[in-house]
Amino acid sequence: MKLYSYFRSSAAYRVRIALNLKNLSYDYLPVHLLRSGGEQLNADYRKLNPDGLVPTLVDGDAVLQQSLAIIEYLEETHPNPPMLPRDPIDRAYVRAIALQIACEVHPLDNLRVLRYLVHELGLSEEAKNGWYRHWIENAFESLEVRLSTDPRVGKLVFGDEPTLADLCLVPQVFNAQRFKIDTQRYPTIQRIYDHACGLDAFARAAPGAQPDAE
Amino acid sequence: MKLYSYFRSSAAYRVRIALNLKNLSYDYLPVHLLRSGGEQLNADYRKLNPDGLVPTLVDGDAVLQQSLAIIEYLEETHPNPPMLPRDPIDRAYVRAIALQIACEVHPLDNLRVLRYLVHELGLSEEAKNGWYRHWIENAFESLEVRLSTDPRVGKLVFGDEPTLADLCLVPQVFNAQRFKIDTQRYPTIQRIYDHACGLDAFARAAPGAQPDAE
Repeated sequence: MKLYSYFRSSAAYRVRIALNLKNLSYDYLPVHLLRSGGEQLNADYRKLNPDGLVPTLVDGDAVLQQSLAIIEYLEETHPNPPMLPRDPIDRAYVRAIALQIACEVHPLDNLRVLRYLVHELGLSEEAKNGWYRHWIENAFESLEVRLSTDPRVGKLVFGDEPTLADLCLVPQVFNAQRFKIDTQRYPTIQRIYDHACGLDAFARAAPGAQPDAE
Repeated sequence: MKLYSYFRSSAAYRVRIALNLKNLSYDYLPVHLLRSGGEQLNADYRKLNPDGLVPTLVDGDAVLQQSLAIIEYLEETHPNPPMLPRDPIDRAYVRAIALQIACEVHPLDNLRVLRYLVHELGLSEEAKNGWYRHWIENAFESLEVRLSTDPRVGKLVFGDEPTLADLCLVPQVFNAQRFKIDTQRYPTIQRIYDHACGLDAFARAAPGAQPDAE
């Protein structure tokens, strides 16, 4: 398999964790989001990923986009170890937390949106950082309520084994810390993050461990 | 089952289509997003949905959030008729298109984000509409390229039967038209939308057909 990735992309980070959890080896193909006006917008790359986003996973003839679709594909084609529980209600719980991050936080705080705020709308650095903080804190507050009260939470979001929810949570916390959000205010989120980061599959997927890390 | 819904919410609209496709009857519980400072933010509702978002589906003891997690749950618990293809590569294609809309467009153009732009950042109505248009057009342009070239496209996104991708596409096109986007510029998207809207499950899920429609 080949993974088109950028070391700091949260979406690519999710897929790297999934590949590691499944013990799948892959070639790492860096796509630099800032260099040359954004390599993800090159015509050649957009043949693989029409939206001009990372990641893209190539598995034989299959060219796959969107991190959560890629992770569900890996789960279906390589079921062990599982990244989703067996019971449909528990699966919905795990997916809901993954989607809360993937739909309610990450889209608002990614590079192209922050750029639009500054370059098109003329926002100050301070207003941009306020925007960033607002959406992270808004989501982490309700997520903390949920994770600190749901009996399914263990060392990780669902018991002690990694699921799709942890794959989304860890990159988002990493990203928040990079933007100087005090994640200690969310003790359950912080505890899950700390535990996950100590696991080999997560550690090897971390931005700083990638070949294109700066 | 009970569905907490708002007639104009794209996310609730997706779930209504899914319930109709699966021939599942449900009680419709309206949550008015604009009235009384937003009924979705009430303490009682947030016990069901900590993020204060619609939809929420209650199925017996299970309380489920996030539209795509709910739809995957319905697919797992009521497999027929299917809303996902059988082949993992095709499933990834359908999910990628659903997620492109659910992660790259809808989060940027929903009510609370548009409000933040106006109330917190002081954007003019014109700048807000420009933002809205930008993210819709950006996504629809690459989606049109994809849907006009992928051999899997039929009357709908995957062949002629409704899938998760159509469930996301139709509410987004409806929403775009409400904001005066000329969707005729995307002929394949428009053709799929027109066909889907003629199907009973989609027609009964439309905002105008809901008990809380205004």
